[in-house]
Amino acid sequence: MRISAFGEIMMRLTPPEYLMLEQTKDLRMDFTGTGVNILSNLSHFGCETSLITNLPDNRLGEAAKASVRQLGISDKWIGQEGNHIGSYFAEMGYGPRPTQVTYQNRHSSSFGVSSASHYAFDDFLKETDLVHICGISLSLTDETRAAAFALAEKAHKQGKKICFDFNFRPSLNKNNEAAFMREQYERILPYCDIVFGSQRDLTDLLNMRVDEALDSAEQFKKLAEDFMAKYEIEQFAGTFRTRQDDKYYLSGFLFSEKGYELAEPREIINLDRIGAGDGYAAGVLLGYAENWQPAKTVAFATANGVLAHTIQGDVPLTTRKQVEHIMEHPTVDLIR
Amino acid sequence: MRISAFGEIMMRLTPPEYLMLEQTKDLRMDFTGTGVNILSNLSHFGCETSLITNLPDNRLGEAAKASVRQLGISDKWIGQEGNHIGSYFAEMGYGPRPTQVTYQNRHSSSFGVSSASHYAFDDFLKETDLVHICGISLSLTDETRAAAFALAEKAHKQGKKICFDFNFRPSLNKNNEAAFMREQYERILPYCDIVFGSQRDLTDLLNMRVDEALDSAEQFKKLAEDFMAKYEIEQFAGTFRTRQDDKYYLSGFLFSEKGYELAEPREIINLDRIGAGDGYAAGVLLGYAENWQPAKTVAFATANGVLAHTIQGDVPLTTRKQVEHIMEHPTVDLIR
Amino acid sequence: MRISAFGEIMMRLTPPEYLMLEQTKDLRMDFTGTGVNILSNLSHFGCETSLITNLPDNRLGEAAKASVRQLGISDKWIGQEGNHIGSYFAEMGYGPRPTQVTYQNRHSSSFGVSSASHYAFDDFLKETDLVHICGISLSLTDETRAAAFALAEKAHKQGKKICFDFNFRPSLNKNNEAAFMREQYERILPYCDIVFGSQRDLTDLLNMRVDEALDSAEQFKKLAEDFMAKYEIEQFAGTFRTRQDDKYYLSGFLFSEKGYELAEPREIINLDRIGAGDGYAAGVLLGYAENWQPAKTVAFATANGVLAHTIQGDVPLTTRKQVEHIMEHPTVDLIR
Amino acid sequence: MRISAFGEIMMRLTPPEYLMLEQTKDLRMDFTGTGVNILSNLSHFGCETSLITNLPDNRLGEAAKASVRQLGISDKWIGQEGNHIGSYFAEMGYGPRPTQVTYQNRHSSSFGVSSASHYAFDDFLKETDLVHICGISLSLTDETRAAAFALAEKAHKQGKKICFDFNFRPSLNKNNEAAFMREQYERILPYCDIVFGSQRDLTDLLNMRVDEALDSAEQFKKLAEDFMAKYEIEQFAGTFRTRQDDKYYLSGFLFSEKGYELAEPREIINLDRIGAGDGYAAGVLLGYAENWQPAKTVAFATANGVLAHTIQGDVPLTTRKQVEHIMEHPTVDLIR
Amino acid sequence: MRISAFGEIMMRLTPPEYLMLEQTKDLRMDFTGTGVNILSNLSHFGCETSLITNLPDNRLGEAAKASVRQLGISDKWIGQEGNHIGSYFAEMGYGPRPTQVTYQNRHSSSFGVSSASHYAFDDFLKETDLVHICGISLSLTDETRAAAFALAEKAHKQGKKICFDFNFRPSLNKNNEAAFMREQYERILPYCDIVFGSQRDLTDLLNMRVDEALDSAEQFKKLAEDFMAKYEIEQFAGTFRTRQDDKYYLSGFLFSEKGYELAEPREIINLDRIGAGDGYAAGVLLGYAENWQPAKTVAFATANGVLAHTIQGDVPLTTRKQVEHIMEHPTVDLIR
Amino acid sequence: MRISAFGEIMMRLTPPEYLMLEQTKDLRMDFTGTGVNILSNLSHFGCETSLITNLPDNRLGEAAKASVRQLGISDKWIGQEGNHIGSYFAEMGYGPRPTQVTYQNRHSSSFGVSSASHYAFDDFLKETDLVHICGISLSLTDETRAAAFALAEKAHKQGKKICFDFNFRPSLNKNNEAAFMREQYERILPYCDIVFGSQRDLTDLLNMRVDEALDSAEQFKKLAEDFMAKYEIEQFAGTFRTRQDDKYYLSGFLFSEKGYELAEPREIINLDRIGAGDGYAAGVLLGYAENWQPAKTVAFATANGVLAHTIQGDVPLTTRKQVEHIMEHPTVDLIR
Repeated sequence: MRISAFGEIMMRLTPPEYLMLEQTKDLRMDFTGTGVNILSNLSHFGCETSLITNLPDNRLGEAAKASVRQLGISDKWIGQEGNHIGSYFAEMGYGPRPTQVTYQNRHSSSFGVSSASHYAFDDFLKETDLVHICGISLSLTDETRAAAFALAEKAHKQGKKICFDFNFRPSLNKNNEAAFMREQYERILPYCDIVFGSQRDLTDLLNMRVDEALDSAEQFKKLAEDFMAKYEIEQFAGTFRTRQDDKYYLSGFLFSEKGYELAEPREIINLDRIGAGDGYAAGVLLGYAENWQPAKTVAFATANGVLAHTIQGDVPLTTRKQVEHIMEHPTVDLIR
Repeated sequence: MRISAFGEIMMRLTPPEYLMLEQTKDLRMDFTGTGVNILSNLSHFGCETSLITNLPDNRLGEAAKASVRQLGISDKWIGQEGNHIGSYFAEMGYGPRPTQVTYQNRHSSSFGVSSASHYAFDDFLKETDLVHICGISLSLTDETRAAAFALAEKAHKQGKKICFDFNFRPSLNKNNEAAFMREQYERILPYCDIVFGSQRDLTDLLNMRVDEALDSAEQFKKLAEDFMAKYEIEQFAGTFRTRQDDKYYLSGFLFSEKGYELAEPREIINLDRIGAGDGYAAGVLLGYAENWQPAKTVAFATANGVLAHTIQGDVPLTTRKQVEHIMEHPTVDLIR
Repeated sequence: MRISAFGEIMMRLTPPEYLMLEQTKDLRMDFTGTGVNILSNLSHFGCETSLITNLPDNRLGEAAKASVRQLGISDKWIGQEGNHIGSYFAEMGYGPRPTQVTYQNRHSSSFGVSSASHYAFDDFLKETDLVHICGISLSLTDETRAAAFALAEKAHKQGKKICFDFNFRPSLNKNNEAAFMREQYERILPYCDIVFGSQRDLTDLLNMRVDEALDSAEQFKKLAEDFMAKYEIEQFAGTFRTRQDDKYYLSGFLFSEKGYELAEPREIINLDRIGAGDGYAAGVLLGYAENWQPAKTVAFATANGVLAHTIQGDVPLTTRKQVEHIMEHPTVDLIR
Repeated sequence: MRISAFGEIMMRLTPPEYLMLEQTKDLRMDFTGTGVNILSNLSHFGCETSLITNLPDNRLGEAAKASVRQLGISDKWIGQEGNHIGSYFAEMGYGPRPTQVTYQNRHSSSFGVSSASHYAFDDFLKETDLVHICGISLSLTDETRAAAFALAEKAHKQGKKICFDFNFRPSLNKNNEAAFMREQYERILPYCDIVFGSQRDLTDLLNMRVDEALDSAEQFKKLAEDFMAKYEIEQFAGTFRTRQDDKYYLSGFLFSEKGYELAEPREIINLDRIGAGDGYAAGVLLGYAENWQPAKTVAFATANGVLAHTIQGDVPLTTRKQVEHIMEHPTVDLIR
Repeated sequence: MRISAFGEIMMRLTPPEYLMLEQTKDLRMDFTGTGVNILSNLSHFGCETSLITNLPDNRLGEAAKASVRQLGISDKWIGQEGNHIGSYFAEMGYGPRPTQVTYQNRHSSSFGVSSASHYAFDDFLKETDLVHICGISLSLTDETRAAAFALAEKAHKQGKKICFDFNFRPSLNKNNEAAFMREQYERILPYCDIVFGSQRDLTDLLNMRVDEALDSAEQFKKLAEDFMAKYEIEQFAGTFRTRQDDKYYLSGFLFSEKGYELAEPREIINLDRIGAGDGYAAGVLLGYAENWQPAKTVAFATANGVLAHTIQGDVPLTTRKQVEHIMEHPTVDLIR
Repeated sequence: MRISAFGEIMMRLTPPEYLMLEQTKDLRMDFTGTGVNILSNLSHFGCETSLITNLPDNRLGEAAKASVRQLGISDKWIGQEGNHIGSYFAEMGYGPRPTQVTYQNRHSSSFGVSSASHYAFDDFLKETDLVHICGISLSLTDETRAAAFALAEKAHKQGKKICFDFNFRPSLNKNNEAAFMREQYERILPYCDIVFGSQRDLTDLLNMRVDEALDSAEQFKKLAEDFMAKYEIEQFAGTFRTRQDDKYYLSGFLFSEKGYELAEPREIINLDRIGAGDGYAAGVLLGYAENWQPAKTVAFATANGVLAHTIQGDVPLTTRKQVEHIMEHPTVDLIR
């Protein structure tokens, strides 16, 4: 299954060794974004992947493309538009000090200024079977919204599978009212087959109600089933993060035609506090592409999400072999 | 409230990534010192701060001044004297391996050779409301002792608030007998309004006795009250470090006219094992300057002390926003 | 003489060791800009300096302010507006390979979105004697143009000296027609006392004509004198870059009430190919502030411009001692 | 024209800042090789390129593939065989100190142990128009020789263009006698269309004789024409390096059906002393692919060769725009 | 007691900050190997040590020798043979992600191609009292096996003490059958006085049987005693790694004429997951050399093993002072 | 010939990439000193060398010893005294910007506080044939002067060869009057066999007069011969640095029983502007130890001095092979 994504390539700038911006002049530059992260991981799992997006026609744009290729993603559908790459600084946290993200201008990025007409969606869709559309495109600009809707509609018409994640960021939506955002989500969901999200996405963004007569686990199941029924969603997946004795655990869920599946929780040990969600999504998409049993999918995807936190940067670079190794030999800490 | 400090600017040289000196040729150079640490933190909290000290009249002295300015401290009162900056190497520990500090010559530093006549104390005092005098000045050289006493006396006479910390370092006092050091402390304390210290400072350095009839918490309270009464101290503050289940906790105390206040302990997770004391002191001084309730002061100062351990280097660079964030949202580990 | 500047703080990101963006993930972050460069240098010469500009109210803005303070410039007049710092990547050239600058979005920077009402110009002007206004403000946005004009008018009214440089960048003026830009320059020049520019600025931007009957040196003198007379300019200065035997030389000129002065050329040896112009300007302003003879000014400023090319980054960090040393001992290559 | 290459991927390890191996523990890892270098450059010129070679089936092999993709080369034909990547250390020279290359084991590398049967030559050839075969394959092992001959024969039969370079390294041929090597070269040349080499390659390796009656320039032309006639070579190209007044110059030559063309010499300024030959070859192949006039080809290729020396590492990463820029504006040293 | 070792010097290449090979071009180069590790540690404990091995006669070989000298080991007996240093890449693990070692060619290393005739064993043995023979020499090549046997035989004849460790690596023995390896071990053990190993070494490699009637601790004791009796081994030592509540503990054992001794377990906190075994061995050999009581030996050696995990790289660089410090003051985390 | 030296081990701290102290927090730490430099070079030439000096008994002292061993020098005679290592910062110059050295306290270093009684000179001298005494010991402190005289006297009595260099540094002698220094030099010279110095050393320090009737070359010869005769010096050597067409050249001279020899000048191309003098001295001492013809000695030593400028840091790490290579193949800039 050829898997692709529509989304922004962002530049992440990270000071070394948990230093804060004031403490150093050294930065590490990486290129990331939900689409980049998921596709890179799928590529490391052996899938054929490609990203459709736009970058500036300058040396920074070329460097970004080179990085995307290095991650194993085809750059064939990356066009040139605008003159800016959205970027953010990640001051990595330690212990009680949180990781602090500071964004630089995102709205006028090459991706932000590109509308549907700036992409060769028709040709692109001929070479893909499943396309992931990042929910941030609905928050960003009028242009990105228009492009996302156009792509979703075209892909759906051609019988391609569409994967969508809510990816709601309050900081990106300061000027968008709740009703406006709900409208956007409601417009795209009918085209979607696989959705990544949480209970809060359904209640807060879609304004769905939980049945408070049920206990909390059942509330969530009922809510998810209603959501899936309403929009004819094939799979709905996401992760829970729980806390026990000062430790944090991740466990992923998956609703599919085979019902509800929840993974055994795995302890989260953070080298980098960004990235588990995309790692989990990549695992679920691999299971989808290879038609795995839900239990296998959530176990694999959860292990992958936990591994994503042990890797510097947003991009989960795990291989199938690495994920399987920690599933089979969880206490081996040295391989030689 | 304009806050200032009298103390040494030291150079800290740290190998990267927990390497030991034998393992690398790479060092990171920072400028630090109790005064630098406390003032920098207060400056990040929004206070107007300045440091009075001396540095060599050479390029290293200029680099040190530039660093102090970067930290937010005025360099207006930094003079030029001598030809050496006291320095130390910090081999950062990991797990059971302790952080190991190795000092290079401290006695012949610019600060060490500067006596009262090398400072413009009178002009300086006109522009400050509270001055912190680092206790190390009493251990270092005859010149630093003389300067500290002159400053304390002048400041006291002009009705400025004086803050003092014991900061006793056995390694700096190998040639100073206990009686000699006691005499120094007893000479400066009558000028002081706020003192940072511990039970051991009172018993071992001032030779005060605990009332063994009391239980240990009461012993300490009684001792502190006696100490404050004897020297007319307005506030006496410090930290306890406790251990439970292989974990360490910090909690700060504060004696003031409103009685005794002890903070809830917070777990210590160390990125750098140096700096909590100065972070706690900065928090207490902020509370003092803004006339906070003791409970607020110790809670804020303890949170700040714990944050200081999550920051590379001795200098606590926390902002008010960061401290308040971990007080209000202790489990949020990523802000974006 | 208290010297200040109005201009943008930009972020420069530079790969190490002459690497190109595709070759490395490591970047060095510096904060720069014409105002920053000139003031930092004047501060290193011993002047009291301050910058008026705006930065975002976030951690990157704070890091930029810390850097400005470190350079010796007061951050008192740096306000908070917008959410973006204009940035550029400098791939450092070597031999025949040119240094390549790639800009990220500049128009929506904190400086770019700030108009006159976002600055406390009146209070600011009370504390300065001479203000440098960077010509880029006339190219950037309607807001920066409005702010520059407002400041120039106010300063002029209050009898403050105004320094201006053309600083025309074709890449920033793709959408501004020549006539439009001429109008802007013509509007600000009547307020100005000192101007930095070149023959081409006068002919191409102001549309002034050279008298082709004269030889080329005289053409330029005549042109400059006309320009100064027309706008009542007190000093007009700039640099020539000449080439001989594969070597490049810099020599600065200065028109003043004392006539025309041209410095002996000095060979340019580049560590960093950006920064000589601002170094020359700083030298001229120092001479102006201290009322030097023109011959001394151009010699000092030219030496300083050449030194600026031997320093990494745009900011000329030379001290008076360093400049005088290479003027007096040009063949000494090691000082110890 | 789809261009491909058969050759080894090597790992280059370089200490930073001209340090020697004894002076540092820091190394920069790059992947290189004649094929990698030429294809990467052609890819940056806009060509579609792919490399056929083998790498170990381990994490280092994957890292090498990622790097090749980043350089713009397809990794589709990179197989897995053996368990070792040939590597070398480059201690970069400065002034009179030469760059010193130290090889680690090359014979047992994945490339070295791979024979014809380890490659899918037939499928590979279907997707290429011109294949470059690196002459080092004839020196390395029996397996690489067998593979090179098999590929050359197949490609020739299918009417694909073959490019070959002598690339003779004495250090790799200590155990190969001259007669043996001559035999290898004579066996492959009949299949070749484009050859890169020097006069010494023809005389010393092929044992051809110069006509000493001619002057030296004519000697070389005659020799080259004899060589091309004998093996039915379409183009023969290479570079001269000359010295004048302590400076070095590069100029490339090209023999084709249109006769002999020699480029104007360009000064060599070295950031890295490895790579001009592959840069020149890439330029010639671009001219060949686009059917340029010889004069344009040698001028472009020579400029490219000189630029290659200004780029760290063996891989010439120049774009068409960069090469054309230094051809048109040789004195511009800063682009912004 | 003069202590020496026979074994390979390997090159370890490690990416910084827990990065994986695909994520960075930066590597840290260290020289290591069982012999290097143990001797370096003993040298830091104050012993006179020397290593007998071979390195290539090139600049990399010289850099390796310089590194060995730096570690405190005499390079007098390091000869020159072959042209390759065996190397490995260590991608350092974090949390659930294991440290991943990738070897480059080991069999054709200078050590791998050196047989007994390439060493001056006789002269070497005159200057040593105890020689450690690394068990890897029995797995590597026919040459290393021959050299190990020759050395063991000579040393035994001359009454020198011989120390041996099994050091069995499955990845190195893919082509060696179990029976073959058993034969090698059985051939060398009669010459040995001190052996480092585990229960699994005795059962799996030597095919010894446990007495299943006993409980597990007694099984092991009986097995070890049988082993020591059979081969006349003076001391047999090794470590257990146990797990409790997600934490790992190390405790070392020692069988000697004084019976069985087992250390109190110490928690393992890993900065680097390689090296505890060699650290434990160095501690045991120090106790042997200084004739300590077994209880002191296992306590010291276990503390040392745990410290080895807090040091970057394979080489335990602990001093006697450091080990004793954590034994006496286990909760002190900062020394100044 | 076993060669040794008496002198200080200093710590050199150098910012990377020609940055100035204000521009970076990164420093590279090296250990150096005239004795270290010369012995390390001789060790790389194959000589047996050892240094007698003192270092602090702390972790920095151990790191310095490890570095000295790595350079190939025996640390057997390095004792422990004092608590400080003299250090300096080297801001590396570029083009017209000079390298700027800033010293930290030198007088209270371990070497500075060590007198004759702190060294085991008698045992030390038994194991050496030639001892180099650094002239800086005569400037530093009363203790170092006393130690130098004691060593010179003892060595001379035992018939050991003594090598001395003037190494006069004005910055170290601000408090020593000229007459005082002359007295020191005159006291040590009668013990010396080989002396490194310049005409200015003889005239300014020893107050010797040139015969102005002679031409300048003859003046110097006469002066040197008088000097050698007066103090019974066997060899007197040093270097001239000349300038032509903006280039600098080095040529070394040597007076011996075979008369005066002057080397062909070699162009100086500086990577590091410190170190040529020690490189030249090492070459002369190698020639002395191996009884070379003067012409060979000055040619080799001059080539070595020039190479020293192409190596980062003060320590000339050249091998015999490297020096001979640039003598025989001066235009080869790449060896592979």
